[in-house]
Amino acid sequence: MDCIFCEIAEKSSEAEIVFENDKFVAFLDINPVNYGHTLVIPKTHYDNFLTIPAEDLVAMTKLTQYLAGVVKRALKADGFNIISNNGNSAGQSVFHFHYHIIPRYENDFHMRPRTIEYKNTEIEIYREKIKEAVTKYEGILNG
Amino acid sequence: MDCIFCEIAEKSSEAEIVFENDKFVAFLDINPVNYGHTLVIPKTHYDNFLTIPAEDLVAMTKLTQYLAGVVKRALKADGFNIISNNGNSAGQSVFHFHYHIIPRYENDFHMRPRTIEYKNTEIEIYREKIKEAVTKYEGILNG
Repeated sequence: MDCIFCEIAEKSSEAEIVFENDKFVAFLDINPVNYGHTLVIPKTHYDNFLTIPAEDLVAMTKLTQYLAGVVKRALKADGFNIISNNGNSAGQSVFHFHYHIIPRYENDFHMRPRTIEYKNTEIEIYREKIKEAVTKYEGILNG
Repeated sequence: MDCIFCEIAEKSSEAEIVFENDKFVAFLDINPVNYGHTLVIPKTHYDNFLTIPAEDLVAMTKLTQYLAGVVKRALKADGFNIISNNGNSAGQSVFHFHYHIIPRYENDFHMRPRTIEYKNTEIEIYREKIKEAVTKYEGILNG
């Protein structure tokens, strides 16, 4: 399977790497939404946020917390977004799990999608759907 | 300090809660971008992704991984976004750290901002700025 992020991790494709250790690599997105837009990936291939083992997700999130602080300070950003897009519908374009760290500045651009409204008791129906699924999965986990 | 998410955690404000344990609460966003748009918060107040202690961030991220799977399956979503907005410039509106879990469906809406380009060797300049800051902070951490 051709995976550009595996190639970057293996050094068979080039990238502007800002951090690397034995398990993770961070490099600049070549289609940035702001200068310094950084991606953090595990060297091991996992498709997305659900399929990466919790242990690796946790280590990667700690690293991303550290790197977000570094990027913000290095680039004197006002804020930043941490984003993980999962699935084509969500805008994922490389199917190798990654976090985006996007440095942000006042009035740089809008990312907020349109909001929708729950009608009448619709919100309770959605709450129940999710709550019931939690209970079901917790039953499996605990059973 | 008035914080609506602290109030939700303490039950002095209502919310459509889908999950709760001793440290975290997950509830439906009342200004959703899709039905079932869920927020995960720590009960303890931390402003953002940088100020939450790594230990709590890690526990919350593991929970969010679990809940993202639940939301996706419960709502038969095609995908989902995990988002943390940090700072006013990044679209953070409640200054109590939270993850968004946004269920996504094919062709539901666009969230991708405009991209920009690095000119000439600009990308290398940004790489060096961040790399140098990493080195500096690692020096502090290791020293």
